[in-house]
Order: sequence, then structure tokens, then C-alpha cells
Amino acid sequence: MAEGTSLEGISLQELQLAARNHGMPLEALRWPVTPVGLHYLLIHYDVPDVDGAVWGLRVRGERELSFGLEELKRRPRADLAVTMECAGNGRARLEPRPVSQPWLSEAIGTARWAGTPLRPLLEEAGLPEGAVEVLFTGLDRGIEGGEEQAYQRSVPLEEALRDEVLLAFEMNGSPLPPQHGYPLRLVVPGWYGMTNVKWLAEIEVLTEPFTGYQNAQGYRLRQEEDDEGEPLARMLPRSLIVPPGIPEFLSRDRTVPAGEVLLQGRAWSGHAAVESVDVSVDGGETWAPAELEPDGGERWAWRGFRFRWDAEPGEYTVCSRARDEAGNEQPLEPLWNLGGYSNNSVQRIPVTVTG
Amino acid sequence: MAEGTSLEGISLQELQLAARNHGMPLEALRWPVTPVGLHYLLIHYDVPDVDGAVWGLRVRGERELSFGLEELKRRPRADLAVTMECAGNGRARLEPRPVSQPWLSEAIGTARWAGTPLRPLLEEAGLPEGAVEVLFTGLDRGIEGGEEQAYQRSVPLEEALRDEVLLAFEMNGSPLPPQHGYPLRLVVPGWYGMTNVKWLAEIEVLTEPFTGYQNAQGYRLRQEEDDEGEPLARMLPRSLIVPPGIPEFLSRDRTVPAGEVLLQGRAWSGHAAVESVDVSVDGGETWAPAELEPDGGERWAWRGFRFRWDAEPGEYTVCSRARDEAGNEQPLEPLWNLGGYSNNSVQRIPVTVTG
Repeated sequence: MAEGTSLEGISLQELQLAARNHGMPLEALRWPVTPVGLHYLLIHYDVPDVDGAVWGLRVRGERELSFGLEELKRRPRADLAVTMECAGNGRARLEPRPVSQPWLSEAIGTARWAGTPLRPLLEEAGLPEGAVEVLFTGLDRGIEGGEEQAYQRSVPLEEALRDEVLLAFEMNGSPLPPQHGYPLRLVVPGWYGMTNVKWLAEIEVLTEPFTGYQNAQGYRLRQEEDDEGEPLARMLPRSLIVPPGIPEFLSRDRTVPAGEVLLQGRAWSGHAAVESVDVSVDGGETWAPAELEPDGGERWAWRGFRFRWDAEPGEYTVCSRARDEAGNEQPLEPLWNLGGYSNNSVQRIPVTVTG
Repeated sequence: MAEGTSLEGISLQELQLAARNHGMPLEALRWPVTPVGLHYLLIHYDVPDVDGAVWGLRVRGERELSFGLEELKRRPRADLAVTMECAGNGRARLEPRPVSQPWLSEAIGTARWAGTPLRPLLEEAGLPEGAVEVLFTGLDRGIEGGEEQAYQRSVPLEEALRDEVLLAFEMNGSPLPPQHGYPLRLVVPGWYGMTNVKWLAEIEVLTEPFTGYQNAQGYRLRQEEDDEGEPLARMLPRSLIVPPGIPEFLSRDRTVPAGEVLLQGRAWSGHAAVESVDVSVDGGETWAPAELEPDGGERWAWRGFRFRWDAEPGEYTVCSRARDEAGNEQPLEPLWNLGGYSNNSVQRIPVTVTG
């Protein structure tokens, strides 16, 4: 293993999280839309038990509205392929390692979400004078930071009003699976996963910023406990490659026969479209441009890329590095922060090429 | 945490496995049939890339037959709810901990599998004189124990000829998802998961026992490296309870208000039907019988049970213990073995009851 050998032992607490939440095995990068069950999953508390037939959504603006699931399905429909990544993706690669869900680099997935646009619904409820944020409350309850809470996150008003923000009731053409938020979840394309509140029960327009746990304590970039920090928002650029060849069961180290190897991967950024992806087979010493696949007109979905590698026998470390049109680029080394968020440093895949 | 605090640090290798494979969050015990994506998953190598339109199955007995997917779908159809558990479930609770996929207790799930019975197909291919086993070969390839191999497991002939053994092409009413073996997998009800070979490509009747890695090295109960050991086969009895109340995010410790708490769970055994389940709230000091739910005529699916607990404020450890009609009972403490298999010791859930 070329990296991570200095990773310190994972604790039982982290293992308990890793055993219930899961990433997307990276060979699933071969699908432009991730099959259900392979999309990453991060559930703060428990999957709640929701009966869609009696479930209802409250929307509180200048007035209060409520909707059943069938009413929402009769509203204007939109669908969108969206790449989603956990804000904690890459956490377990940081040293010292922040203790939480110990993601390596697989907390990703792309789904085709269908639902009804949020904006008209907010406009029907009415935006009060001085509205600044919209708060989304899920049905999942638990204790975090010592406080009992439902999972709640607010989104700045201008983000909530973007045309492409959906209240999704379908994933890949079927009703949402329980673990992805049945019967309704928020989808804010381009933002990290924590924003996309599952099992939605209530939406409220706020005239003061929300100060609940998930906005004020969790999901902030800070260096020390008493920093106020910066809230996490859009996904930084990242690219990942389908690990070539075959794995060893335990180490996951890869072996591939010498000859032309087609390296394929996908790249995304929540800030701007992907501009370029470079590939290295020597651990980042030298880079060459990958060929981007046509973008298919899906701004919020990852973009495929490929690179033909004439592989000679030896030991290699395959890497990729994406850059977006706003000039953001993946760093070679992780940038540490207390919560272990947004570590988009380049992937490194040790590969043995056999003669 | 009442248990596992002495668990030693999980390594990067184990974490890599835990991040791609996943268990069933235990709140999903509420569903008699596990929703797709929540069923546990253990993939030795990579999910292979299979095109169902060109895929074919070879069956080699006295003669060689081959079948496309549509041909198999036109054969006699059967469907069956089957509880499946990884043979390594409970491994991470053993001390010292065998290094492999670090399961706690969640490597389980129940699916409704539909497909065509295996036996008539074997009979069409013809059973050679002296046939002893049937070998199943998947399309997933990797390196294990130093050998490059496709995933292969053999099953004793008399097991392969059981009426309820299926070649399954549907899971919960849909085509198999890629990660569960698309387009075809073996389902041997009552056996641990390793038997249920995914991405089936070939079936071969053998007149000598198979000596490949997964039968001769892997999946054997042994105390030392040079023991021959006993092959793993049917699932030992196990019961699991839906963790009551709400979790703390990181520790997963549970909190529930005082009053009547309905404890619900499910129990199964591959050896015989579940005869009884007992529940303890004091960590196994005292036990009381749970009420078994009607079995619904599904011998190979888990059986529901419930227990009304009049919970007073304090600290508790909730446990359950199943016994099957063959007299097998869950042990209170794990029985160690080198590979970390079949640890069916009782679950222990720390619960705080608040006043």
C-alpha cells in the first residue's frame, strides 16, 4: 500500500458507523448513474419508519401549507442527474484523523432524482420580508453534540430559490428507497450531501440564520474547537478512477497485465463545470491530460474521462487531478481541518503491472 | 459502550473492506423483506461488468449445456424469501480479532429471490457416476491467499439437489442489482452467504471434492493455520433486536423514555426452525421468553419476535438469544476461531432509560 500505512487504528465507534453507512465501490464509476444500493449513504441517526400514505409535508412561509405525497406528485415534475458526495469524504486520510464516519474516497454516487421544483412551492407559501434562509427538517431523530434533535439543515435563501433545487420523490425511476429519504428528500445540486435533507417533514422560511447543531456546530471548516469556522457548501472538484486490473481481497492492491490499459474515471465540482482532468501513473511526479467524455448536458452530474496507459511491468501509483472552470484544482496533499471535511486531495491507486 | 471497548484498532485494510461492503442497519429489521440497498453485501473482488444480453451459463454434467438469461427465465419459476448472513458476521467481536471484513453483527438481510430451480437443470446435464459435489464459478476475479482466481465454491451434491435451491435472476421483484450478482446467482437457503455464488458463469458436477481456495483454505473453522478444519455450511441460530429509542450519532448508544418499550427483532437458523427466543435487559443475567410472530410458512426466512419491556429509568443492556428445533442455541460468549467465522454470540445493546 503506497498510502495510508500510517493510518492509526480505527475505533469501535468509527467501525460501527462504517458498518452501517457505506461508500460506492469504485468499480461502480463505470456507470454514469449509480445503481441503487451502490450510491453512498450517510445516515446520522436511524432510518425512520415512515408510512407514505399518512406522511405529510408542512411548508411555512408567510402562510402555512401542507401537502401529501400524491399532491406533490401532481405538481410540475422535473428530473436531474446529480452527483452527490459526503462532506466527510476523505476524512480517514487526514492525520491526525478526525473521529467520525471514516470515509476513504468512496462517499459518492450519482442518481437521477425526480420530483417537484422547490421554488414555486416557497412562493406559494410566501417569502416574508427579511427572509434569509430556508430550514429543512427530517424525520430522523438522535443525539449529537449532547443535544437531542431531528436532523435539520438550513440553506441560504438564494440557493433554495435556484431553479434546479428539487423535492425528490424518485431515485433512478423508482420511489425513494427508505435509506435515501422515502418519501421525500431535498436535492440541492452541487452541494455536499448534508444539505440534501432526507425524510423531509417540514420546510420553514427563516428571517434569522438557523443556529441549530448541523449548521452552527457540524459541517463547518475550522482549525480549532473555538473557531467560528466557515460553513460547508459546494463540493470541491474531485476525480476518481476505476481501479484497473484485479484486486487482492484483503489489501485491495491492484494487478494488471502489461500492455495498453484504459484508465476510466469521473470528475465533478459543485463550483463550476469540470475543465480538465490530468492523470499520473508515478504518484503525481508527472501528469498528462485525460480525454474528457461529452458532458451530456448534465451540469450537475460527474463527467467521464479516459486515459490510455501503455503499461510496462513495474510498480505504479495511478492518480488523477481535476480542475474546474472557476480555477479550483485538487491539491496533491490533504488540507487538514477539525471535522475532517472536504478532503479532495488526489486519489492514489497502487498498481502492479505484471510482465 | 458495554461491549467492545477493548476492540483493538481496525487497520486500513479492514477499513477499505468496511467502506465498500456494508451491513444492514439494524433498524431495517423492521421489514420482513429487506429493501434493496439495505441487504448486507460482501464482495470478495470487484463487481464485474456483465452484459446480460451476451452473458451465458455453462452447465457441465455428463454433458455440457448452455443457457442465455431469457432461456432461464422461460424455465419453471420459483420464489422464496431467504435470510442470508455472512459467515464472518460477528468477526470484529472476537479477541484477538481475525483480520478480514470487520463485521460487528449486521451482515444479514432477507430477500425474496426468484429464479429457476437448480435440480432439473443438473438432471438435464446428467449426474456422472460418483458425483460428489457441484462447483459454482462466478465472473468476479481477484487474488486471495496468493492465488489469482475466479470466485468459486462447491456445494455437496445432496445440498445442490435440494428442491429449494435456486438459480436466482430476481431480488425483491426486480432483476438482480449488479452488486447482488446480476444476471444470475446461486441461492442455497439456510447456508452462509459465501455459498450463494454471484455473477454465475459456470456450474460443474464434480466426482472429486473441489480443492480450490474458497473451500480448502477459506471458510473453514480452524484453531490453527495447519488444522484441516471443518467447512462452514449452515447458519447457526442468531437473533437481533431493533435497537430501541434513538441513537447518539457517534457512539450509537441508545436512549429511550421510561414506560412500556416494545422490543422487536428477528431470529433465524439454517439448521432447523426457530423454536424460541429469550430476551434479557440486564446483559444476560436473567431471561424471559419473547413472543414469536406467526412464521408465515417461510422456513428459510427469519422469524419475528416481540417483547414488552416495562422500562424504568437506568442503564440496561438488551440482549436476545434464539434456540432452534435442533437444540442449537446462541452462546453468551463468542467461540473464537482463526478465520473469525460463525460468531453467533448474543447481541448486546446498551440502552439508557430516561425518567
